[in-house]
Amino acid sequence: MTLAQVAERAVTAAALADDRASLLVHGTDRTGIVAAVASVLTAHDANIVSLDQYSDDPQGGEFFQRTVFHLDNLKVTLPDLEADLAAKLADLGLSYRLNDLSVPKRMAIFASKSDHCLLDLLWRQRNGQLPVTIPMVISNHPDVAEEVRNFGIPFFHVPSPAGPDKSSAEAEHLRLLRGNADFVVLARYMQILSGDFIAGVGMPVINIHHSFLPAFIGAGPYAKAKERGVKLVGATAHYVTEDLDEGPIIEQDVVRVNHADTVADLQRRGADVERAVLSRAVQWHSEDRVVRRGNSTVVFV
Amino acid sequence: MTLAQVAERAVTAAALADDRASLLVHGTDRTGIVAAVASVLTAHDANIVSLDQYSDDPQGGEFFQRTVFHLDNLKVTLPDLEADLAAKLADLGLSYRLNDLSVPKRMAIFASKSDHCLLDLLWRQRNGQLPVTIPMVISNHPDVAEEVRNFGIPFFHVPSPAGPDKSSAEAEHLRLLRGNADFVVLARYMQILSGDFIAGVGMPVINIHHSFLPAFIGAGPYAKAKERGVKLVGATAHYVTEDLDEGPIIEQDVVRVNHADTVADLQRRGADVERAVLSRAVQWHSEDRVVRRGNSTVVFV
Amino acid sequence: MTLAQVAERAVTAAALADDRASLLVHGTDRTGIVAAVASVLTAHDANIVSLDQYSDDPQGGEFFQRTVFHLDNLKVTLPDLEADLAAKLADLGLSYRLNDLSVPKRMAIFASKSDHCLLDLLWRQRNGQLPVTIPMVISNHPDVAEEVRNFGIPFFHVPSPAGPDKSSAEAEHLRLLRGNADFVVLARYMQILSGDFIAGVGMPVINIHHSFLPAFIGAGPYAKAKERGVKLVGATAHYVTEDLDEGPIIEQDVVRVNHADTVADLQRRGADVERAVLSRAVQWHSEDRVVRRGNSTVVFV
Amino acid sequence: MTLAQVAERAVTAAALADDRASLLVHGTDRTGIVAAVASVLTAHDANIVSLDQYSDDPQGGEFFQRTVFHLDNLKVTLPDLEADLAAKLADLGLSYRLNDLSVPKRMAIFASKSDHCLLDLLWRQRNGQLPVTIPMVISNHPDVAEEVRNFGIPFFHVPSPAGPDKSSAEAEHLRLLRGNADFVVLARYMQILSGDFIAGVGMPVINIHHSFLPAFIGAGPYAKAKERGVKLVGATAHYVTEDLDEGPIIEQDVVRVNHADTVADLQRRGADVERAVLSRAVQWHSEDRVVRRGNSTVVFV
Repeated sequence: MTLAQVAERAVTAAALADDRASLLVHGTDRTGIVAAVASVLTAHDANIVSLDQYSDDPQGGEFFQRTVFHLDNLKVTLPDLEADLAAKLADLGLSYRLNDLSVPKRMAIFASKSDHCLLDLLWRQRNGQLPVTIPMVISNHPDVAEEVRNFGIPFFHVPSPAGPDKSSAEAEHLRLLRGNADFVVLARYMQILSGDFIAGVGMPVINIHHSFLPAFIGAGPYAKAKERGVKLVGATAHYVTEDLDEGPIIEQDVVRVNHADTVADLQRRGADVERAVLSRAVQWHSEDRVVRRGNSTVVFV
Repeated sequence: MTLAQVAERAVTAAALADDRASLLVHGTDRTGIVAAVASVLTAHDANIVSLDQYSDDPQGGEFFQRTVFHLDNLKVTLPDLEADLAAKLADLGLSYRLNDLSVPKRMAIFASKSDHCLLDLLWRQRNGQLPVTIPMVISNHPDVAEEVRNFGIPFFHVPSPAGPDKSSAEAEHLRLLRGNADFVVLARYMQILSGDFIAGVGMPVINIHHSFLPAFIGAGPYAKAKERGVKLVGATAHYVTEDLDEGPIIEQDVVRVNHADTVADLQRRGADVERAVLSRAVQWHSEDRVVRRGNSTVVFV
Repeated sequence: MTLAQVAERAVTAAALADDRASLLVHGTDRTGIVAAVASVLTAHDANIVSLDQYSDDPQGGEFFQRTVFHLDNLKVTLPDLEADLAAKLADLGLSYRLNDLSVPKRMAIFASKSDHCLLDLLWRQRNGQLPVTIPMVISNHPDVAEEVRNFGIPFFHVPSPAGPDKSSAEAEHLRLLRGNADFVVLARYMQILSGDFIAGVGMPVINIHHSFLPAFIGAGPYAKAKERGVKLVGATAHYVTEDLDEGPIIEQDVVRVNHADTVADLQRRGADVERAVLSRAVQWHSEDRVVRRGNSTVVFV
Repeated sequence: MTLAQVAERAVTAAALADDRASLLVHGTDRTGIVAAVASVLTAHDANIVSLDQYSDDPQGGEFFQRTVFHLDNLKVTLPDLEADLAAKLADLGLSYRLNDLSVPKRMAIFASKSDHCLLDLLWRQRNGQLPVTIPMVISNHPDVAEEVRNFGIPFFHVPSPAGPDKSSAEAEHLRLLRGNADFVVLARYMQILSGDFIAGVGMPVINIHHSFLPAFIGAGPYAKAKERGVKLVGATAHYVTEDLDEGPIIEQDVVRVNHADTVADLQRRGADVERAVLSRAVQWHSEDRVVRRGNSTVVFV
């Protein structure tokens, strides 16, 4: 059995769930939403496995609900259930996302030279911890090609042009991604994406920033952290928007450092936090646990 | 304004919630429970504020649900809602607990000489963080009397008899507690309660054990931890059962220690964890977030 | 035995150490410093109990060393040892601080209305965990007077004048502090100290800021944290300088929050971190474990 | 440049330090040890880069000291320094270990089927974070052969015989290890080593146990943890002795779990802690920061 075969088997076995679907409902709160959703599910003999609900204000605030349900012969029976659900939720003025949890999302990864976040994602996917497939890794450097291909995953080298105009490289990125990916992860990709790319890519893009945002926005956060003398360094996974380092935060964490740590030490300790934070954000996104709420997120975990 | 008045105002303002109730439902899982509960709530114009649900197996496993809902004029309208709910849940073979969240639970505290857990509970209650009143503190030593009374709370000294027979002291405990408390917290109370007392007290009893159970069961856990050379020490809050240190765990946490820490240092560092763990367990219990499940707990946080 | 007597006994028993002294040495690194210091200590029959040393660059960088030693009849014999040490360190161009660890530092506390940091310091001092005495608590509000005096500690109410000119209140602060305190702790004191006061007070001032600096500098950090959607909130203890929120950081920590937490929840969770961070910073400062290094600190723990 | 070349360059660049040595001194405490060691170093123009010292009792307890020093032309000059040091420490009745920090230790890894700890060690070594070389990976299963060899590291498959007598496999282990390794790491190696092997291998052996020892000693700790309803699961790295799960603990850590986590979830969350704990233990051991003290350890970090 090759490593690629191992990977396939593992995904089937662990992170994916046959005959289960997740439903995210979002909109203006009002009395009766939970009952309305549950009654549709019950009418189709769907059994609720887990339900999380959050309203920021029971008097007309925003309503968020994530429901996972089990349904026999889901692939056959889900369309009927969805039709009823869509009608009911339209009446209530609510939007929804419905996902068959036996179908992995397709995650494209962008990387540069450092491989700590990349390797952690490749390993977790192969090990069956993430309900995703990885159709490709794209990099502006060739350094990680061998490592990626050892996991049985295609690697594409798209060099970054010298000048400020990245449009030719980004056009190549879009050709590669379109139709082949459901979301993009920037695993310490050291290039800034243009507003045109973000507007045009048509899928969520998740970035890992190497600081506890909003502290140390911009380049060189570990050097800034050393300069300021902080006692913790951190990392932040967020959705990418046109405002650099300002997108909705999905997950953050920190690790303790001290006066004796050099900038290189902070980078090394920070790298462990970066990979942990990014892996959790990817897991939650791919399990449909994250809903944007203005410039922040609701995460049901 | 006296400190006692400050305390009363704070409780009203913060931890308690007018016109809100919590509902815990527990039993064998089957399709339609969420819908059934939600339909009763909707029929009474109750709006669900938060809902957490957990099934250990969607095919006939155990079902747990905690729902908080808002209902206008709750004190007037809750009885009607409860009548409908009780009928519906009886049909489904489920048990439930329904609590008016504007009514604080009455928490009796047992203490001995050390005051770190005691003081933290007294302060959090006065500060409005816990939805409880404290009708009394009972101790087998007089040391903390002044401190307790400074908080405006009655203190009763019930000495522990020298021999193994604690029945006279426990009879006094029961006389003090009956009708006056909804649950008991052992805040580093250094006496073992008899099986008769536990069977007869008729209310939940929460204990804080000074180790990460099941490590270091019994007396002297910090000395044992030093002897074994562990790198973390911890604390465990659990419901008290007749099997010492074996009751259902509500909450645990740890703190890092090292070779240079003496047993006294472990005690000091452990004390900070003990008070934090006990406070969280008390908070969750008093907000009705904890359901026993065999010898473990489901905690909705 | 009154509570004040309990407190006195506890300090004597635990945090203070007879016949021990701490020595901090600081200056430009060169070969032989450790040997020079150790040889003086050996010549006086002092036994080193612990030694921590840090050089930021062995080729002419900055050198920091903290040594704790035991010396029989310390109060009698320390002056001779210090004379030899002063001569030797002057030869090497190094500065030093030498402290008799049986003598508690005198800590004045400034507070306003909230009492979580204040109470934690009062309790830890009474419990013998901090090698300090508390000569006074000063507040711009009378709210915590009773609580402070219950601990047997003097309370002074110095109202803050309405306008921007705080000079009369600060003059009163200086009259109270001078000769009576070794350092000041701002335990959530909600007034900005003037540059004149900081320049003139002549002792270190430690503040607790309710954010993970440098994130959310200035007022209202929890509201800013909610707005930005961070997943952790924190606290920072630092020495006060004329640049608000920019002084050398002593300690920081964070706690996890989520989308469902309101600003009030962030404040409550943050308060637990604030008191823990401030207590650690006070402990390390009072045990002479902290050395300023430009705008950061070296902390030997 | 191949990955193996990348690895070699990284080790040279980062974790190893030219012209630096570490010195561990251990024995009965007495006045003057620090001065004696420092005077030898100074006499040879060695500059102390860091020094950590610990005495469990200044009146005749055990003394531990770790010193890192810089010495020009270390490879040429260290023998003379060591001769003086050995003489001086023999006079004081102390033992020592002296290590040239430019020379990596040789770490042999034993693994079975799961690869999370293994991959983390391989990656950290290649990335230059660990001052080690990896001469071989030995496994009782062939599953990880390709993965190991992709890192340019020899893989040896030594099947485990069916019966209780493992002596033929262990003889093969000893043939492979002798002369080729300085220490062994059991990276989730699912075989028990015999007392004969441990007594005969002649080098330290580090194991990662998948629980917070001493809780859940023996097989199946995650199933036991689920059964007991704990709220944290952990991992423990320790030196292997003849008493299974009883050797000196080097490092431990935990992660939070809850009622909804299945045994498989505990294993997955625990795996992240296992690899983190083992990596830290390996780092500290390979940097000569760990000294055994009876059945516990002193770790200078």
